[in-house]
Amino acid sequence: MTEAVEKILSNYAGENPGVIGNLRRIMSTGTLAGTGKMVILPVDQGFEHGPARSFQPNPDGYDPSYHPKLAVESGCNGYAAPLGFIEAVAHEFAGEIPLILKVNNSDSLGDPGQPCSAMTSAVSDAQRLGCSAIGFTIYPGSGFRNDMYAQIRDLIREARAVGIPSIVWAYARGGEMTKEGETAIDVIAYAAQIACQLGAHIVKVKAPSEAVYLPAAKKSYETIPIGTLEERIRHVVQSAFNNKRIVIFSGGAAKDRDSVIEDVKGIHAGGGYGSIVGRNAFQRSHDDGLSLLRDIMAVYAS
Amino acid sequence: MTEAVEKILSNYAGENPGVIGNLRRIMSTGTLAGTGKMVILPVDQGFEHGPARSFQPNPDGYDPSYHPKLAVESGCNGYAAPLGFIEAVAHEFAGEIPLILKVNNSDSLGDPGQPCSAMTSAVSDAQRLGCSAIGFTIYPGSGFRNDMYAQIRDLIREARAVGIPSIVWAYARGGEMTKEGETAIDVIAYAAQIACQLGAHIVKVKAPSEAVYLPAAKKSYETIPIGTLEERIRHVVQSAFNNKRIVIFSGGAAKDRDSVIEDVKGIHAGGGYGSIVGRNAFQRSHDDGLSLLRDIMAVYAS
Amino acid sequence: MTEAVEKILSNYAGENPGVIGNLRRIMSTGTLAGTGKMVILPVDQGFEHGPARSFQPNPDGYDPSYHPKLAVESGCNGYAAPLGFIEAVAHEFAGEIPLILKVNNSDSLGDPGQPCSAMTSAVSDAQRLGCSAIGFTIYPGSGFRNDMYAQIRDLIREARAVGIPSIVWAYARGGEMTKEGETAIDVIAYAAQIACQLGAHIVKVKAPSEAVYLPAAKKSYETIPIGTLEERIRHVVQSAFNNKRIVIFSGGAAKDRDSVIEDVKGIHAGGGYGSIVGRNAFQRSHDDGLSLLRDIMAVYAS
Amino acid sequence: MTEAVEKILSNYAGENPGVIGNLRRIMSTGTLAGTGKMVILPVDQGFEHGPARSFQPNPDGYDPSYHPKLAVESGCNGYAAPLGFIEAVAHEFAGEIPLILKVNNSDSLGDPGQPCSAMTSAVSDAQRLGCSAIGFTIYPGSGFRNDMYAQIRDLIREARAVGIPSIVWAYARGGEMTKEGETAIDVIAYAAQIACQLGAHIVKVKAPSEAVYLPAAKKSYETIPIGTLEERIRHVVQSAFNNKRIVIFSGGAAKDRDSVIEDVKGIHAGGGYGSIVGRNAFQRSHDDGLSLLRDIMAVYAS
Amino acid sequence: MTEAVEKILSNYAGENPGVIGNLRRIMSTGTLAGTGKMVILPVDQGFEHGPARSFQPNPDGYDPSYHPKLAVESGCNGYAAPLGFIEAVAHEFAGEIPLILKVNNSDSLGDPGQPCSAMTSAVSDAQRLGCSAIGFTIYPGSGFRNDMYAQIRDLIREARAVGIPSIVWAYARGGEMTKEGETAIDVIAYAAQIACQLGAHIVKVKAPSEAVYLPAAKKSYETIPIGTLEERIRHVVQSAFNNKRIVIFSGGAAKDRDSVIEDVKGIHAGGGYGSIVGRNAFQRSHDDGLSLLRDIMAVYAS
Repeated sequence: MTEAVEKILSNYAGENPGVIGNLRRIMSTGTLAGTGKMVILPVDQGFEHGPARSFQPNPDGYDPSYHPKLAVESGCNGYAAPLGFIEAVAHEFAGEIPLILKVNNSDSLGDPGQPCSAMTSAVSDAQRLGCSAIGFTIYPGSGFRNDMYAQIRDLIREARAVGIPSIVWAYARGGEMTKEGETAIDVIAYAAQIACQLGAHIVKVKAPSEAVYLPAAKKSYETIPIGTLEERIRHVVQSAFNNKRIVIFSGGAAKDRDSVIEDVKGIHAGGGYGSIVGRNAFQRSHDDGLSLLRDIMAVYAS
Repeated sequence: MTEAVEKILSNYAGENPGVIGNLRRIMSTGTLAGTGKMVILPVDQGFEHGPARSFQPNPDGYDPSYHPKLAVESGCNGYAAPLGFIEAVAHEFAGEIPLILKVNNSDSLGDPGQPCSAMTSAVSDAQRLGCSAIGFTIYPGSGFRNDMYAQIRDLIREARAVGIPSIVWAYARGGEMTKEGETAIDVIAYAAQIACQLGAHIVKVKAPSEAVYLPAAKKSYETIPIGTLEERIRHVVQSAFNNKRIVIFSGGAAKDRDSVIEDVKGIHAGGGYGSIVGRNAFQRSHDDGLSLLRDIMAVYAS
Repeated sequence: MTEAVEKILSNYAGENPGVIGNLRRIMSTGTLAGTGKMVILPVDQGFEHGPARSFQPNPDGYDPSYHPKLAVESGCNGYAAPLGFIEAVAHEFAGEIPLILKVNNSDSLGDPGQPCSAMTSAVSDAQRLGCSAIGFTIYPGSGFRNDMYAQIRDLIREARAVGIPSIVWAYARGGEMTKEGETAIDVIAYAAQIACQLGAHIVKVKAPSEAVYLPAAKKSYETIPIGTLEERIRHVVQSAFNNKRIVIFSGGAAKDRDSVIEDVKGIHAGGGYGSIVGRNAFQRSHDDGLSLLRDIMAVYAS
Repeated sequence: MTEAVEKILSNYAGENPGVIGNLRRIMSTGTLAGTGKMVILPVDQGFEHGPARSFQPNPDGYDPSYHPKLAVESGCNGYAAPLGFIEAVAHEFAGEIPLILKVNNSDSLGDPGQPCSAMTSAVSDAQRLGCSAIGFTIYPGSGFRNDMYAQIRDLIREARAVGIPSIVWAYARGGEMTKEGETAIDVIAYAAQIACQLGAHIVKVKAPSEAVYLPAAKKSYETIPIGTLEERIRHVVQSAFNNKRIVIFSGGAAKDRDSVIEDVKGIHAGGGYGSIVGRNAFQRSHDDGLSLLRDIMAVYAS
Repeated sequence: MTEAVEKILSNYAGENPGVIGNLRRIMSTGTLAGTGKMVILPVDQGFEHGPARSFQPNPDGYDPSYHPKLAVESGCNGYAAPLGFIEAVAHEFAGEIPLILKVNNSDSLGDPGQPCSAMTSAVSDAQRLGCSAIGFTIYPGSGFRNDMYAQIRDLIREARAVGIPSIVWAYARGGEMTKEGETAIDVIAYAAQIACQLGAHIVKVKAPSEAVYLPAAKKSYETIPIGTLEERIRHVVQSAFNNKRIVIFSGGAAKDRDSVIEDVKGIHAGGGYGSIVGRNAFQRSHDDGLSLLRDIMAVYAS
């Protein structure tokens, strides 16, 4: 129980103690315990991109135990994965590190026309498996937006009633959205706002680029400094209820170590709450992934 | 209770004793009892392909009793079929051989546009009929993916609660998937991964070909040996949670005895957990089918 | 699947295949598999009489694993115990030997005034734990008779719906019933009839004495041969729907080996379906208990 | 995650990961984290004995925050209390120390004739408040035994389904039970056995005296060494499934420091899993209570 | 929103905003708005004592509109009554003054043997009628204690879920409790503690006398100053979670104006949160009742 953590939790004052307790637990775990910052290891790429693309770079990753072990060893605040990966390890890791059950998932073999993940597990699974949060992906921009927003509405309500907070992965995608638009600063800030408005306790977005995508938004951005990553992060955090909701950032595809650390420094400088680091962690060799995670945490701890 | 079986069951440590017990029962039945390997006789072709295509090659198969008798006589680990076939024989075979209720089915008279089996029976039917598992087919790649994943999510949860494990038939199909793609090594491995992530206790896939289908996956397969069936099976088993989930393989359409045995040898050599042998068993004459099943088991017992 | 077993099961022709299957499973397990006879090891004395009285004679019995191991080793058809003992071993023994969950229990520290066991577990527990039957004690003669009959009515109905048969322990007790009356031939036969009428699939009663307890029944027994145990067993079996329900007998408190075997010979000769042997098995040393169980089975197999 | 803890958890192998995770969490908290031993601070005396009798010795204890703070400061494994006390502090302490919701309680103003606590909160409260376990008191010996056993049966089942373990306070009381009988070694061992058979994950009993209460049990105790507290504890632990269930002991009314420590040494030497220390902790001055708790933990850590 | 009110609400930090909001509404109404003190007008005497005894002293009181009008006119914080009285006026007063639905009631025509009010309305009635709280009477000491505690457990949970706080009238009564015991300081303090532990948001007790009733409590009271009403109130407030729950006091039967005011001064001086004034208000003439209520409020405002 540190001042930094309690200050963040005071932004969730209307929540029940179960939800607050799980958020406190996540922020009281690992290397960054008590700092109010967090690094989460998510491994849903086996489902989303297929096993070979995900795990062949470091074949240890085919094993479901590899990831939570890495998360514990490196001092992560939590480990997130789809049902099967969580089921394979929960008896061993529940109570040891906060588990986050990703309750919807997409695969790359086909799709329902517009981006929309399938519901692959439930709040009752999270309870049975001792999870500290659920995770859910929304695709603002998709033609199936309304289905996803209604799903997350119901899931957050059901999860809260049993003391479980919700983490929303907010990725604008679908419809006429361009690839560039998906990471444009206005779109990322907007996606963060939507997730917060939907009741997310923690929001995960991609690191924003300098582009402004929506024509109607261009004017507004004339007066918002977005030249540096730090500035853009600051704007996203502001867009997430003026810093009153936890926003964490993903780095995307695996890349070189220096770029990763550089990004993290920008996120930290801009007031981001932390990083969700998947491929950059588990697609490296064990020692390399471990040391990169530790370096990332060192930035947030600084 | 053998070391081989208990070692496999230890991979399901988070499951309740009812589910574990039924998995143990399946692995403690028949010729391969105690080896950790299994051969299952499935007969859903009457539903899927029509009676004449299915049973005319060996007209004894029109009779629902023929198949479970063959399964018992040959020493199979279980017998799988749709509701009607199970109902016709359960009073005689429940408690004698593990029955597996196939709870969704397609027919060849028409379809809903994209591949998606109909829900044809329920977990409560499996209980009433004394079944040891349910079976469910998913078609990753189909435009109805989300419906099927949500269905199996609910079925697995409901079945687990009453101690019944779930076997998932994972066949990529639909959307833009080509016929060749359906059995490509990357697609089969991916389908196995998806089934495991969805919480399947046993996964059934087709034997994979040497093709790599998804462009995004081609690079990954440059370093994965897939030249022989043995190698490909090894990769599929690795993709099923690094060997921590039971994966069994089907042989597809009836073919000559030697090819069947050759395939089984490859599956066994690659670490596959067994075979699901339908048409190659019941579309032969009784004695021929029986001896082929026994030969297959001899390979797995070796 | 033997003729002996199928003949017995034909007496339950109206039951669903799940119930039939579990009865078949019980009769297809252990040394007596296929004979239609059964020996069951029940261990509820820890609850009913307290741990020291139950287990001190053979302290290995304090360990919940001891008993199902003994049951398997000796070739019993099933192992029956209260919730805690079953929960402690089900993950290891479900699927290996039929587990029977005793869903009500009494202790000796106090009571509700008239004999009436407490409900201590539920049908859903039996499912979760992979049990093949539930067990329930009724005390005909008790002032709380109506409560117990209503409870077993509901339990049998609920268990049947999910394919689980019910074993009823029928012990006349309470009200003005004397100690001698509890085992009188007329009372035992009556208790067996009541259990059958309540829908029990298997009935367990004590071995009857030559006494006739109820004044109104005395005349009837003038013409019923009850001089030997064999004759009395024959009458009890007849009273259990003319042999159409499975009736098994308990021996009661531990006693010398020869008496036990003598009783079993009488039960077998009279057409009893088997024995439920608790204290005479687990209160002996391991080797002694094992060899006695085997000797008992040898009688039934003869 | 230590070997000591994982070895204990292996005795609960049939439980779901949620229950296991919460047990692991309790054993991974505080000074005794990882040792497999535990000290829990329970404060239900305000309800059971009234506020003045409970808190006047140290008036800080009138404040609901005092106790969980003391529990955290002293390094306890958990804090147990009725609904009101937990509600008053859960938003601050959930996620910081395992909270245990006592779901039934008695007061001293009156009673329903025979000992039987009132149901005062529910499993859903435990979820909403972020609790890691529920607690429930049974009174074996009471004429309302059957009601209480049925209540705990339902609560354990409901709590397990959502991943919450159950702690059973087992106090023989009521009927013809004498005051001396309540703590007699045979009665305490029996009460522990009953709680285990009812499915308790953790059992709490009083430290046993040398008396043997039940006439029928006297003979058994001729061969059981019960002369020292260590020996008696060893017998109670054996009676709790041969050491396979966690049994912790309460010390009862406040007494002098040396007696408390002496008792704890006996519990530790006899293989007890720990202590539940209420009045001896919070009825002392803060510093005195704190140092006593630390001294107790030092014994268990030795 | 005043500091005084927000400080009180901070003691309910784990509650949802709906409950908090209704508590804030009650404390933001009437003459005492913003002071953190409250005076509530309750009129359940028509039900509890019969109409003539209740309303003949001031026949205007037969009219259900009389009371809420008086409450508004005098500046009360709320008006409490049974279903019928609330239904008769809610369309006119909901939104005007917080209505409190008394959901259980006793009459004086008979009783169920031991004190236990009948459930006379439901949480859904409170919603339908726009009420800001429900009220419930418990009788600690009654042989039906367990029934009442279970009822209030369920009602509080249900009401909270829809944002409605609960006010518990806690009156020790029944069993062997004497008339003098009912208002003894130890019993009143104990009753307040019980109500708080049961989760009451506001507790209502009678003003305590100097007597100490429970023999076991006498020693504790040797060191607690209870000579004046102020001291006794201070002890009761301390017993209600050290001032962290709102406790208000009733005056009982109608009496002379000076005694009432004297009592209120004592309550205020001792830190009581307010008064619930029924008969002393509505059994006087309108003007007299009005001016007495105003005088009472003047004390609390001072």
